[in-house]
Amino acid sequence: MTTLEEDLEDAAAAPQQVGVVHPGLRRARAWLSRAVEPGTVDLWRFVADVGPVEAVRRLRAGSAPPGIRSLVGARAEGDATLADLRRAERCGARLLVPEDDEWPAYRLHALTVAVAEEPVHRRDQTDRTRALVPPLALWVRGAARLDELAERSVAVVGARASSAYGEHVAGELGHQLGERGWTVVSGGAFGIDGAAHRGALAAGAPTVAVLSCGVDRPYPAGNGALFHRIAEDGLLVSEWPPGCAPLRHRFLVRNRLIAGLTRGTVVVEAAARSGAQATAHRAQKLGRPVMVVPGPVTSALSVGCHELLRDEKVGAVLVTTAAQVVEAVGRIGEDLAPPLERPDSPRDGLSDVAVRVLDACPVRMGVSPERLARSAGCDVLDVLRVLPALELAGLVEWTGRGWRLAPPPKPPGAAP
Amino acid sequence: MTTLEEDLEDAAAAPQQVGVVHPGLRRARAWLSRAVEPGTVDLWRFVADVGPVEAVRRLRAGSAPPGIRSLVGARAEGDATLADLRRAERCGARLLVPEDDEWPAYRLHALTVAVAEEPVHRRDQTDRTRALVPPLALWVRGAARLDELAERSVAVVGARASSAYGEHVAGELGHQLGERGWTVVSGGAFGIDGAAHRGALAAGAPTVAVLSCGVDRPYPAGNGALFHRIAEDGLLVSEWPPGCAPLRHRFLVRNRLIAGLTRGTVVVEAAARSGAQATAHRAQKLGRPVMVVPGPVTSALSVGCHELLRDEKVGAVLVTTAAQVVEAVGRIGEDLAPPLERPDSPRDGLSDVAVRVLDACPVRMGVSPERLARSAGCDVLDVLRVLPALELAGLVEWTGRGWRLAPPPKPPGAAP
Repeated sequence: MTTLEEDLEDAAAAPQQVGVVHPGLRRARAWLSRAVEPGTVDLWRFVADVGPVEAVRRLRAGSAPPGIRSLVGARAEGDATLADLRRAERCGARLLVPEDDEWPAYRLHALTVAVAEEPVHRRDQTDRTRALVPPLALWVRGAARLDELAERSVAVVGARASSAYGEHVAGELGHQLGERGWTVVSGGAFGIDGAAHRGALAAGAPTVAVLSCGVDRPYPAGNGALFHRIAEDGLLVSEWPPGCAPLRHRFLVRNRLIAGLTRGTVVVEAAARSGAQATAHRAQKLGRPVMVVPGPVTSALSVGCHELLRDEKVGAVLVTTAAQVVEAVGRIGEDLAPPLERPDSPRDGLSDVAVRVLDACPVRMGVSPERLARSAGCDVLDVLRVLPALELAGLVEWTGRGWRLAPPPKPPGAAP
Repeated sequence: MTTLEEDLEDAAAAPQQVGVVHPGLRRARAWLSRAVEPGTVDLWRFVADVGPVEAVRRLRAGSAPPGIRSLVGARAEGDATLADLRRAERCGARLLVPEDDEWPAYRLHALTVAVAEEPVHRRDQTDRTRALVPPLALWVRGAARLDELAERSVAVVGARASSAYGEHVAGELGHQLGERGWTVVSGGAFGIDGAAHRGALAAGAPTVAVLSCGVDRPYPAGNGALFHRIAEDGLLVSEWPPGCAPLRHRFLVRNRLIAGLTRGTVVVEAAARSGAQATAHRAQKLGRPVMVVPGPVTSALSVGCHELLRDEKVGAVLVTTAAQVVEAVGRIGEDLAPPLERPDSPRDGLSDVAVRVLDACPVRMGVSPERLARSAGCDVLDVLRVLPALELAGLVEWTGRGWRLAPPPKPPGAAP
């Protein structure tokens, strides 16, 4: 068993090979994923500047700048990398690093752009729970490739304490997005998240749960069977190493990844001050479409949804169907939502005079064209001009003594 | 009893007096209101050009242009003006004409602007059910002044076959708008219209029902008691003379008045192809705010609402409360909706390190600052710096042996 320091030295000395990730480099990122809370602008910059291997060596040796050292603090001393990697392997997980081919670089590019815009001084930077910082590494559990699943993916997020309405809609959306070949990404929580994942799985489609705890002990435990199925058909993804607990602040930090990995975010139910709203704001800042499913205004679980729809800065789009979601995130020209079906009426396309004559016709007793003209407010000649068309359309009929409305058509299959 | 022709001659010869409407002029407009279906661009222009008295004289004498004569057709022969005016008087109604002080000229000005934009040739003009044409006269039943009620008014419209949800929301909106001193204008129909009227009346506020039939026999008969109360506290308004039936095409023609008389239109529930959507489109064309109450996406009765909200051309605003409605139609700076109340959390305003230390604190057994530093990923000095603030906020406590989370505060009034 080589020590972390030996592995790092090896990695530093080895020539870089395209498509091959040195074990020491992967171990360096594994170490960082435990030592550093994700979403820390300065630490991400430090790693980007000196490289992950050198970053870990300096942090271990105490030669990193003081501002960086304080971000790691007491965690600098420990090294659980081999245990973490072994633990991951045991549950069918792996550590994905930006140097891997499978890294969803294209999707996550928006985070790299966003972090570049953060100010130099820490006191001016965005709070860590809201800062848009790329992940240093991702623990991934499941057989699918993350880059492929993320390429055509939509986030569906919402309340944990959701209503039957919200779960129904989330399940339908998940199912229909899955059927259309879109990956549903969510947070694996109770309520909307779970319903969206389940809908996708029911359609036989892979789905991705982005967690704020270790992929070996996904939280909440009550979703255990669901996580098992997701790991089989899709992916469990986390920035935190195996065994990590889902601490409260981590949920907010995690939300930027749900927004960042997907082409757009759909909020199904969200209370007034909710994580789903936070995810929607991350998506908006990343330039991704924010879509919102409305609900009854009497429901506290839709207050956050309606706030998003009223907020002009967010520019959220109201969606009611998966087709409308796909239209919002799909490629222009493809994936257009079909117009909603409307009931057709034989009155459509009638002239103003024809409509007035039609409305003047009685239901029972037939009346003369002269009487119709008087009721409709037009010339008798006008009445005589429009009556044939109304009769052809099956709207009026001649009783032998006058004109009246035709009875409505019988439904197909009715007795004659 | 003077004949119509004598009265017209008198009116034509009489000098115009400000604030005084000659009986012959009112009789001319009464005649027009029965002879002409409202919303007819060319007839409105003819009356505007030659004046109502001369317009009626020429139509009666057969000397009006043929295109105008054909719009009146067989109705030119009849004269029910005295009977209509008497019938109105019997039910407490009157004929309001543009020459009256009470005419809501300021509100209806947008219709005058809109009709001026209609093309010259009839074949190019907007269909009569959609044309924005000012009314030639209004039959008004009730003691209130229409101009005063219309000045601070909002239309609340929606489906007839509404759901309990829609009726609840419409009733609440009507009530709260009434309480705030706004007049609710609607169509007097079953469902949303009726609920909105009833809500306003329950708040002791006047409300206006704009009908597509005579004000002496308001339709539907099932709303008879409601119409009676509206006539007592508010107004029943119609372009059609007493006794007229609510023919189908008249509903659409009427809708422009609901939009035109008000500062904005709120749609509560609307199916995919509905009169409420039509009213919203009229309001938008008149430059008045269109407001829409969303509903469950599973409800066919909210499909039209969500279509309006998705239609960028309409530019509809999602509203969930009367305060938001008033904000949209009220004067800038006044009538701002208060921000929705949000639950406050003692975590608000905590620094990143403080949140991490807080999340690292166990529920039961107290732990040392060193252990907290390791869990939170920061220096022990940082932990010692933030602990006093967390303790002051009542979030953590010292057990004598270590730090743990403080129990949540007891609700007021709970046993000690």
